[in-house]
Amino acid sequence: MKLVTYQSAGIKRIGSVHNEQIIDLNYAYRSMLEADGSLRSEQIAEAFVPPHMVEFLKGGEQSMRAAKEAAAYALSHAESLSYQVFHNVNEVKIEAPVTTPGKIICVGHNYREHILEMGRELPTIPVVFAKFGNTVVGPQDDIPFYPVSDQLDYEAEFAFVIGKRARCVSEADALQYVAGYTVANDVTYRDLQRRTIEWLQGKTVEGSAPMGPWLVTADELGNPAGLDISLTVNGERRQHSNTANLVFTVPFLIQFLSNLMTLEPGDIVLTGTPGGVGVAREPQAFLKEGDVVRVEIENIGALENRVVRVNEGVRG
Amino acid sequence: MKLVTYQSAGIKRIGSVHNEQIIDLNYAYRSMLEADGSLRSEQIAEAFVPPHMVEFLKGGEQSMRAAKEAAAYALSHAESLSYQVFHNVNEVKIEAPVTTPGKIICVGHNYREHILEMGRELPTIPVVFAKFGNTVVGPQDDIPFYPVSDQLDYEAEFAFVIGKRARCVSEADALQYVAGYTVANDVTYRDLQRRTIEWLQGKTVEGSAPMGPWLVTADELGNPAGLDISLTVNGERRQHSNTANLVFTVPFLIQFLSNLMTLEPGDIVLTGTPGGVGVAREPQAFLKEGDVVRVEIENIGALENRVVRVNEGVRG
Repeated sequence: MKLVTYQSAGIKRIGSVHNEQIIDLNYAYRSMLEADGSLRSEQIAEAFVPPHMVEFLKGGEQSMRAAKEAAAYALSHAESLSYQVFHNVNEVKIEAPVTTPGKIICVGHNYREHILEMGRELPTIPVVFAKFGNTVVGPQDDIPFYPVSDQLDYEAEFAFVIGKRARCVSEADALQYVAGYTVANDVTYRDLQRRTIEWLQGKTVEGSAPMGPWLVTADELGNPAGLDISLTVNGERRQHSNTANLVFTVPFLIQFLSNLMTLEPGDIVLTGTPGGVGVAREPQAFLKEGDVVRVEIENIGALENRVVRVNEGVRG
Repeated sequence: MKLVTYQSAGIKRIGSVHNEQIIDLNYAYRSMLEADGSLRSEQIAEAFVPPHMVEFLKGGEQSMRAAKEAAAYALSHAESLSYQVFHNVNEVKIEAPVTTPGKIICVGHNYREHILEMGRELPTIPVVFAKFGNTVVGPQDDIPFYPVSDQLDYEAEFAFVIGKRARCVSEADALQYVAGYTVANDVTYRDLQRRTIEWLQGKTVEGSAPMGPWLVTADELGNPAGLDISLTVNGERRQHSNTANLVFTVPFLIQFLSNLMTLEPGDIVLTGTPGGVGVAREPQAFLKEGDVVRVEIENIGALENRVVRVNEGVRG
């Protein structure tokens, strides 16, 4: 499935994407239950297919199976559903798939060919850092450009979302803990990142983590290695690599991170960015008002956001 | 008020501490409403004095006033309350005041005398880094010591909790955004902190942020500068300073941080630690199984936790 969070009439709910249609999974499940005579359909649908992504992911495989069943039911009973189950993709707003992640864990220096071309040795321990939940924006949102700095930069990233509580998980079992994969842009205020020894302040500025457009579920994507990843600014290619080049793979990262901390459903891991970021170009090429940044990952999709100046706050 | 999160019969709820008694604020408010003839007391109490700390803090000054009124009512009507409003402190478990903070933002290098004695210049920009919510433990929990490293270290910290959504707040207005203050220990796996250029992996290990025992509300504490802070290990003093020595004060930090990101009710800021941490001693003195670490802050209280080996996970 392709899982989305969408907004219609001000309400955010989860759905699955089928061509140009979004199926509201909670209402689809509820319709299915009612057709079967259930008198507690609202409560049962809330329990098994809650309309909020993190709550849904907490339901684990049971909720994932129920959602699939509900989507299949909706497609085959489109004429007889009790609720508004179908929405045209163009008639709703698509949000980030997980709007309220408990953790956003980012990995630095993770693309092999870029590290080697810089003449560095491959690391044996991943560099990890954080973004907070205030950074999350969706595929139809702008990238806000605040006057805290002039050095707004992009970072194409392949991201995975945890689907099951993970603590001290082995590399061999790790992929069972992934709910799905999405596209992210680890937007960075480069000078704020580097003005102290810790990157956080340049990484967690409001609205600096566009993600989406959807979560491709782990069963649908299969192997997370071997996917082309690229980024363009106004159509010009700036970054290009393949997830086969990750020094620290998805299974390794789950083992490594879950050995330090409990990973919870809805936690997001951004796996690092390939070479070609704006600060490393000659001459340097930072983002400016109106730029369109597009990150595309094979078998997942494309995330495209426009940079828009927001005059809130002052230079940091 | 001294606000706590306490656990009784497996349920976590908030209360205020009065000598040896805890008043359940939600039930106190509900009792008060019912005595006044309200037929919607449950829903109204949930709306104004919800039993979960982050939800309560979202209610802002209105909820804070309602809680105070409820506590005063309970104290003066102890014999005629409809619910179990009073608990003896010894009969419940005290949890961290905020068990599910959206952000835990930590400040490094912030005690003036310690920076100067190290021969460094005073910084002009704070170093900030993150811990995730998985680190939170309470005043009656142990500090788990996982085999990921041998270098477990302590850091006494003065912490404040946000009570009102803050975005681009001025230093002059900043203290209006603080709900209250508490005591924290920024427990750190020192080698994990330093083995890469980013500290996060040594800072966010499970259970590494003991906090409590309560939140002293901003109106009760008054000026957050000028408070003695000290830390002992097994009774031996290791750290001692005063919040008057903070290079970056509470109002400055709120201005600085809210200019980067929206601060939300329940977000916690740990303001940095004085000199005397284990790694900087000669010889180095890391924590070991059975050590009792006590952090005390004037006019707030004392946070005491025991270090206990937990054989989960492997060396990172």
